[in-house]
Amino acid sequence: MGLKKYLKEKGMLVEEALDTFLPRETEMPATLHKAMRYSMMAGGKRIRPVLCIASCEAAGGRMEDVMPVACALEMIHTYSLIHDDLPAMDNDDLRRGRPTNHKVFGEAVAILAGDALLTLAFRVMTDMSHKSAVTPNIILDVINDMSWAAGSFGMVGGQVVDMESEGREIDLPTLEYLHTHKTGALLLASIKSGAKIGGGTVEQIEALTRYGECLGLAFQIADDILDIEGSQEEIGKDVGSDLEKKKATYPSILGMAVSKERALELMNMAIDSLNDFDEKAEPLRKIAKYVVERRT
Amino acid sequence: MGLKKYLKEKGMLVEEALDTFLPRETEMPATLHKAMRYSMMAGGKRIRPVLCIASCEAAGGRMEDVMPVACALEMIHTYSLIHDDLPAMDNDDLRRGRPTNHKVFGEAVAILAGDALLTLAFRVMTDMSHKSAVTPNIILDVINDMSWAAGSFGMVGGQVVDMESEGREIDLPTLEYLHTHKTGALLLASIKSGAKIGGGTVEQIEALTRYGECLGLAFQIADDILDIEGSQEEIGKDVGSDLEKKKATYPSILGMAVSKERALELMNMAIDSLNDFDEKAEPLRKIAKYVVERRT
Repeated sequence: MGLKKYLKEKGMLVEEALDTFLPRETEMPATLHKAMRYSMMAGGKRIRPVLCIASCEAAGGRMEDVMPVACALEMIHTYSLIHDDLPAMDNDDLRRGRPTNHKVFGEAVAILAGDALLTLAFRVMTDMSHKSAVTPNIILDVINDMSWAAGSFGMVGGQVVDMESEGREIDLPTLEYLHTHKTGALLLASIKSGAKIGGGTVEQIEALTRYGECLGLAFQIADDILDIEGSQEEIGKDVGSDLEKKKATYPSILGMAVSKERALELMNMAIDSLNDFDEKAEPLRKIAKYVVERRT
Repeated sequence: MGLKKYLKEKGMLVEEALDTFLPRETEMPATLHKAMRYSMMAGGKRIRPVLCIASCEAAGGRMEDVMPVACALEMIHTYSLIHDDLPAMDNDDLRRGRPTNHKVFGEAVAILAGDALLTLAFRVMTDMSHKSAVTPNIILDVINDMSWAAGSFGMVGGQVVDMESEGREIDLPTLEYLHTHKTGALLLASIKSGAKIGGGTVEQIEALTRYGECLGLAFQIADDILDIEGSQEEIGKDVGSDLEKKKATYPSILGMAVSKERALELMNMAIDSLNDFDEKAEPLRKIAKYVVERRT
């Protein structure tokens, strides 16, 4: 199956599952639930859930067992976007080509919709425990990974350092810290949680972790490149918005040529870490290529 | 032991535990961790953790087993205060007599400190699974309760309805919805999680749940009364701030006399639900009295 078809099919299954996990818009408080759904059902590539599912299947597991975790990842990702877009943070009016959550629902509801989505992520992962074939200890382990990845030593920590770096000259180690935390941690958690729910061996989990680390960094470098070279249609926000905000990026520190080289190198390292996996890991190999080659 | 001494002793043990669970201020990103500690270590009665511990001990459990959950409750409570105080929400400058988080660290860091505390709550509950005598299934069940209580069908939902009600006439059912969600849900989760971690029987968990429901509502009515009759020193915020914001309260809907009567009635119902418990439930009985009688 081609990657495009794979992404589309899995993405649709994720959206169906999200629809069942999210509260109805008619349930009280309706405004809050509308706001949650507005951002959750706004499209996007569902890259974290798809990575989670692909990693689970690569390790020999079943998609239905991992779906709650896949959806939890998308909820955490979406809450972080809602909060990042707020006036007090990045102050963005557009996200995926649509008005941002606070533009539609106001700041207060946007903050609370983010809070509720983060909380729902943990509910969904624990709701699953009654129906799932996965052991309680594995579920607890996955929730633990997820909370490290999303918290002050992961995504939220990265966001703080990102804000503190704006308009300042930062060095490569700070930039790598920023990205491995702000974006990389949750991408890595997507892969690791999939591997664990999928019943992967210690070696498989380690190999997939290596894959996730390389992919996460490659993804961010490619994103920085896309911000400079992409079209508004492709990225759904204003082109050059990083430049405008004087955000440090890989191209601004390493130059465009070296950045592209580094992204390709990381892509190959990601793919190589899957050498001991069979054809069930093929989607992960293709995703690594896709993430980097969409623009470089 | 008198209640005052009990609250002080347990409160101090909770603060010691919080200190070990919270990231050091020196750990990167320092600003974020300082902001988290600023609000977490700002005093307060630690009523949720103490209720959780008291409920665990009433059910025959040990404090050390429940401490991570007790601290998680305080993290969730504190994150909600930080977000509620934001300019986009209640826009409060003072909390427990000190400048609010965003007044000290700025709005962006305050939002993220709240996010990180909520996330840390779930980490702390899953970190415990390796050391604890409590079974993984009970831990998952408690996390599930907690995420219902904190999310859009609990605390966050209550906050939205609270905001939507400001300056409007609301009826008693809406006011009760508001309070059972905004404050009651997490108080109830404190009691229930303690009972479950403490190894309570089904009957014990049910009785403690009844206790928690009555206590939660009594607590809120008493709070409304305190806002009108208390001194600034006692409540750590401006007296009459609810009145000023035209917030609906029990006294404003039912009148002061009926409100006080209702609070006392709920207090007695709470205490009665503990009839089958021995002297280990004494702190819970005293807390119910204290919550209501501090002002009425």
